[in-house]
Amino acid sequence: MSGLFISLEGGEGVGKSTQTARLAAALQARGLHVAVTREPGGSEGAEAIRGLLMQGEVTRWSPHAEALLFAAARADHVEKRIRPALEAGQWVLCDRYLDSTRAYQGGQGIDDAAILALHAFGSKGLLPDRTLLLTLPQGAGEERALVRDRGVADRFGARGPEFHAEVTAAFERIADAEAGRVRRVDATGTPEAVTARLMDALADLLP
Amino acid sequence: MSGLFISLEGGEGVGKSTQTARLAAALQARGLHVAVTREPGGSEGAEAIRGLLMQGEVTRWSPHAEALLFAAARADHVEKRIRPALEAGQWVLCDRYLDSTRAYQGGQGIDDAAILALHAFGSKGLLPDRTLLLTLPQGAGEERALVRDRGVADRFGARGPEFHAEVTAAFERIADAEAGRVRRVDATGTPEAVTARLMDALADLLP
Repeated sequence: MSGLFISLEGGEGVGKSTQTARLAAALQARGLHVAVTREPGGSEGAEAIRGLLMQGEVTRWSPHAEALLFAAARADHVEKRIRPALEAGQWVLCDRYLDSTRAYQGGQGIDDAAILALHAFGSKGLLPDRTLLLTLPQGAGEERALVRDRGVADRFGARGPEFHAEVTAAFERIADAEAGRVRRVDATGTPEAVTARLMDALADLLP
Repeated sequence: MSGLFISLEGGEGVGKSTQTARLAAALQARGLHVAVTREPGGSEGAEAIRGLLMQGEVTRWSPHAEALLFAAARADHVEKRIRPALEAGQWVLCDRYLDSTRAYQGGQGIDDAAILALHAFGSKGLLPDRTLLLTLPQGAGEERALVRDRGVADRFGARGPEFHAEVTAAFERIADAEAGRVRRVDATGTPEAVTARLMDALADLLP
């Protein structure tokens, strides 16, 4: 039996990593086999590409080169990690996936159709069964991320508030256009409250 | 005034690197400003990607991930190195370029149209003004490469004779289909004789 593929998305500091781990524990408590992974990275080759993507100056890569690197990393991750886990019957929880590329690279002038074409080429267009979009009031996530990173942000976190507002707007557009796959989840309140909302947003998929 | 972009192509051990250097010297002797570069690599970012591509097991990357990495490296190389040199009026000599990706990744089942689409996305489809395809009798190049590499081949040189025969056949198909851009050059004989043939194959472009 094939497992289900769940991605967690959202801007900087919205709590994706914390909630991915908490959600995995909640699903395991229901007796499910869960594989937790993240992007960029998640497989040996993709983690090597992640190093190229996350380090260095903001201008290190052109938006086009960056989109190709994300597609290459995702192709490796899907082939080596995600598909094998799904075929083994596991639930795969992924901290960021394709929608992050659409939101972040799309904000730099890359056409959404072009990003989807790269994904079709590299990963046969694999989409999550459900995407959980964590949302916070504008600006709240970046404040959390500033505290978390203590000024040592990566190439994406280091960008300005206008960039992050565009990212948020792009996630909203994806959620509007693909309401069957994407569920918005309010990320305010305690970690326990957010995890409970995430479980609610998966209720129709749980055995 | 914009310079001209010349690529040297061919299978393993055909003498591309030696002849790229010799051709550069011959063009400089004519008073031209020449920039010598290579792929994969040729710019700081692309050389970092080259490290991922050339090292490790033959099966390290799927053909699709590999094609995306080559397109990413080329996008960086074209933007940071090739276009600026051409705009500065230099002749750019490149040891391998797009046709190598078409021949090597095409031999692994990647559709030629898909590789050209990635190139259109990453590098706005930049093609050389002339491509010089060095040719040797079947098998002769791999013998030369074996001596050169002393058994320490990279991920591409390490493949078997059938793979290299397919690569050669793919180069021949490109040369047949794009005879306006690609010139075959016999790579047998002394280095001096081969360089003289390369200069002949550029005669109509020389000032």
